[in-house]
Amino acid sequence: MLFHVRMRVNIPHDLDADVVAKLKSAERERAQQLQRDGTWRHLWRIVGQYANISVFDVASADQLHEILAGLPLFPYLDIAVTPLTRHPSAISDET
Amino acid sequence: MLFHVRMRVNIPHDLDADVVAKLKSAERERAQQLQRDGTWRHLWRIVGQYANISVFDVASADQLHEILAGLPLFPYLDIAVTPLTRHPSAISDET
Amino acid sequence: MLFHVRMRVNIPHDLDADVVAKLKSAERERAQQLQRDGTWRHLWRIVGQYANISVFDVASADQLHEILAGLPLFPYLDIAVTPLTRHPSAISDET
Amino acid sequence: MLFHVRMRVNIPHDLDADVVAKLKSAERERAQQLQRDGTWRHLWRIVGQYANISVFDVASADQLHEILAGLPLFPYLDIAVTPLTRHPSAISDET
Amino acid sequence: MLFHVRMRVNIPHDLDADVVAKLKSAERERAQQLQRDGTWRHLWRIVGQYANISVFDVASADQLHEILAGLPLFPYLDIAVTPLTRHPSAISDET
Amino acid sequence: MLFHVRMRVNIPHDLDADVVAKLKSAERERAQQLQRDGTWRHLWRIVGQYANISVFDVASADQLHEILAGLPLFPYLDIAVTPLTRHPSAISDET
Amino acid sequence: MLFHVRMRVNIPHDLDADVVAKLKSAERERAQQLQRDGTWRHLWRIVGQYANISVFDVASADQLHEILAGLPLFPYLDIAVTPLTRHPSAISDET
Amino acid sequence: MLFHVRMRVNIPHDLDADVVAKLKSAERERAQQLQRDGTWRHLWRIVGQYANISVFDVASADQLHEILAGLPLFPYLDIAVTPLTRHPSAISDET
Amino acid sequence: MLFHVRMRVNIPHDLDADVVAKLKSAERERAQQLQRDGTWRHLWRIVGQYANISVFDVASADQLHEILAGLPLFPYLDIAVTPLTRHPSAISDET
Amino acid sequence: MLFHVRMRVNIPHDLDADVVAKLKSAERERAQQLQRDGTWRHLWRIVGQYANISVFDVASADQLHEILAGLPLFPYLDIAVTPLTRHPSAISDET
Repeated sequence: MLFHVRMRVNIPHDLDADVVAKLKSAERERAQQLQRDGTWRHLWRIVGQYANISVFDVASADQLHEILAGLPLFPYLDIAVTPLTRHPSAISDET
Repeated sequence: MLFHVRMRVNIPHDLDADVVAKLKSAERERAQQLQRDGTWRHLWRIVGQYANISVFDVASADQLHEILAGLPLFPYLDIAVTPLTRHPSAISDET
Repeated sequence: MLFHVRMRVNIPHDLDADVVAKLKSAERERAQQLQRDGTWRHLWRIVGQYANISVFDVASADQLHEILAGLPLFPYLDIAVTPLTRHPSAISDET
Repeated sequence: MLFHVRMRVNIPHDLDADVVAKLKSAERERAQQLQRDGTWRHLWRIVGQYANISVFDVASADQLHEILAGLPLFPYLDIAVTPLTRHPSAISDET
Repeated sequence: MLFHVRMRVNIPHDLDADVVAKLKSAERERAQQLQRDGTWRHLWRIVGQYANISVFDVASADQLHEILAGLPLFPYLDIAVTPLTRHPSAISDET
Repeated sequence: MLFHVRMRVNIPHDLDADVVAKLKSAERERAQQLQRDGTWRHLWRIVGQYANISVFDVASADQLHEILAGLPLFPYLDIAVTPLTRHPSAISDET
Repeated sequence: MLFHVRMRVNIPHDLDADVVAKLKSAERERAQQLQRDGTWRHLWRIVGQYANISVFDVASADQLHEILAGLPLFPYLDIAVTPLTRHPSAISDET
Repeated sequence: MLFHVRMRVNIPHDLDADVVAKLKSAERERAQQLQRDGTWRHLWRIVGQYANISVFDVASADQLHEILAGLPLFPYLDIAVTPLTRHPSAISDET
Repeated sequence: MLFHVRMRVNIPHDLDADVVAKLKSAERERAQQLQRDGTWRHLWRIVGQYANISVFDVASADQLHEILAGLPLFPYLDIAVTPLTRHPSAISDET
Repeated sequence: MLFHVRMRVNIPHDLDADVVAKLKSAERERAQQLQRDGTWRHLWRIVGQYANISVFDVASADQLHEILAGLPLFPYLDIAVTPLTRHPSAISDET
């Protein structure tokens, strides 16, 4: 099941630099693991913004929440989720 | 070059039914041709809406406009374009 | 899987009255069938508006779209879908 | 009488961690008590957000305010209340 | 129980003038009857707009919806309902 | 002359607790004095929010500003003012 | 008493051209009379829009509504009213 | 003096096709004349929209309004004007 | 040339009180000097807000920016500029 | 390929003054270098705001992101990117 997810990162400017560095490194590691698992299907950066547009392939909405709420940067993410379905004119079965 | 495109279809309710049917059929044909060409890379329907989220792979912004403005339903589409770039944590070179 | 759905009905004022009556009657029948099936779990009217707030229990986002797009009034509905998950403080397993 | 309530939690990032932990624990206890009382009828988490959608069953708007304003996290909640009523196509008397 | 109600009137400009006149006359009669009953407690016009701000005193949210949905101009009203409660600094028991 | 005023209270969470307590106490005293004077005609709390909806009866817009700007909590209030007038269907002369 | 008024003109494109011409001519005449009376103190066009920004000097909010609701183009005006008061740094007594 | 102008074209779908064709042709001719005069300094289409972003070089705001209000498509244009000035880091004197 | 300017003052609550007092005093002095020069043509306070609506009479947009950016409170001002022109129904040449 | 970019600068008021001065100086140097390279084609200040409107000429969206994300002030910039294309009525080939 595919979900379109838009994440905007809002890290407070007075957060400790070491804490931020660790969070970002952990976030990166987790994002890559989820991509290798096939769960985080697409991950693009929005030009000019500290934000991304992603597509997740999960078994349920519950699993999606578990993944998103478990991201190291979650407390600083502004997230919008849009459920997707197969488009009648799509030629592949990607969804 | 990848562009994220959100299209919402707003066909006036008093448009002639035959005209609408022809437009939709032409739109479908064009959408499938562009998918086969590899230009219309992703095409998903938003759940509960007469709208889609797409990703186009084009040589330039000019080409993207030419494609979008040439869609049979273009006069009735509300379109938002977001340029994408490679995310530093992405593991594939899809972008 | 639970989805929160807000539907606002916007029937054009110049639509034929008989057409509208038939659409509403068909919508009502379909809504009640889906409630009996356990799919349309909750259905409330918003006070002062021709709009409802609903909760659907479906096997997938695909199924939800099929149901919503198949509603007789669908062309006149402005729909917003929000995926839900179990709240950590919830005492029942409703989700 | 049913009210639809959307709560978004905005805890300032520089609030003392112990204070936050105590507030969350007290909030959880209070939420569960209100659910056992039948007042907090539904409680769902919104996927990807530190927010919930709830339905309260109260004797009056006054009682609803007393409950909401008394929540331990109230100072950090952004709350929107929507009064509900029975939908003419609903098959149960839940409202 | 008090509810704050904001109504904006949007009558389509191509509606038959006689129909409009009858609707307005019926609306006025109904509004005055509800005021005499003590249900429509306050009714003010917003300066410069075809809109009003009202306060209703009803036994329940259900009753409020019944009243609003029964207004002759209801199909052309854009309505926003806000539940009110006693303010801790209020000196009267009006609510 | 009647004005509809919506006030939302936004007290910074790191303001000194004693200062806040004194401001709230002074605000309450001032609000009650203005109610006794007949100037602050209505004062309701919005359910679920640290906000109120009020109606002021003043001799002029200048007087209204003097009153609002003189409220102890004014620096932390987000205020929206809407001028009211008699509604043609109103049965009392309250305005 | 001064009020800042923003008016945007939205004349439906299918309104009869003669009707429109008469409405505009009557509007112009009325606007000039109110300016000569000193009531419509300032009248500016917003660059690039069929809209104006005005300042009215009236005895009361009631009088302002009577004037605005009596404008020939009133049914097609989208009006926003903002009450003004003397600025503490103003050197004239214009308000 | 430079002004940034965003124009969105909203031609009603039931406008006569011949009228539309003539308006568009006249608009094009006028746009090119103003570009040759050096007044309409930049003219770009927004990708995916029937809208443009322009920069005008005029002697005054009055002149800008005269030009915009005189465009053949003006009644169907939604226009937003932003005054520009020289940026302190700009290396040319274009403004 | 006239420009309509709306300024909202947002002074951070933790700014030093002496600094604020000096800024406000300098702002007042500057505002009065510009009024005496005939540049700051109108200056009104918005009722209930720490905000003003002003009209400036300047030789160019460049001059307007220089004036606004030079205001002592500029770093804390949220400013919106709207260019004005003579209204065809205006009876004076004020613009 | 041309992109329209709007940047709004939001420097936190409690950032160290020396840090801010260095950032601004580096930003200025970088902006001028990119202008000399022909990449940052236009750079205008918005009147009354700490914001600019720019047009970039780049080989790809990737290059644009690299440039924007590399700006010294990037962490404090609120950026909106709009892809542009040649307007059919444009007389130059600037795009």
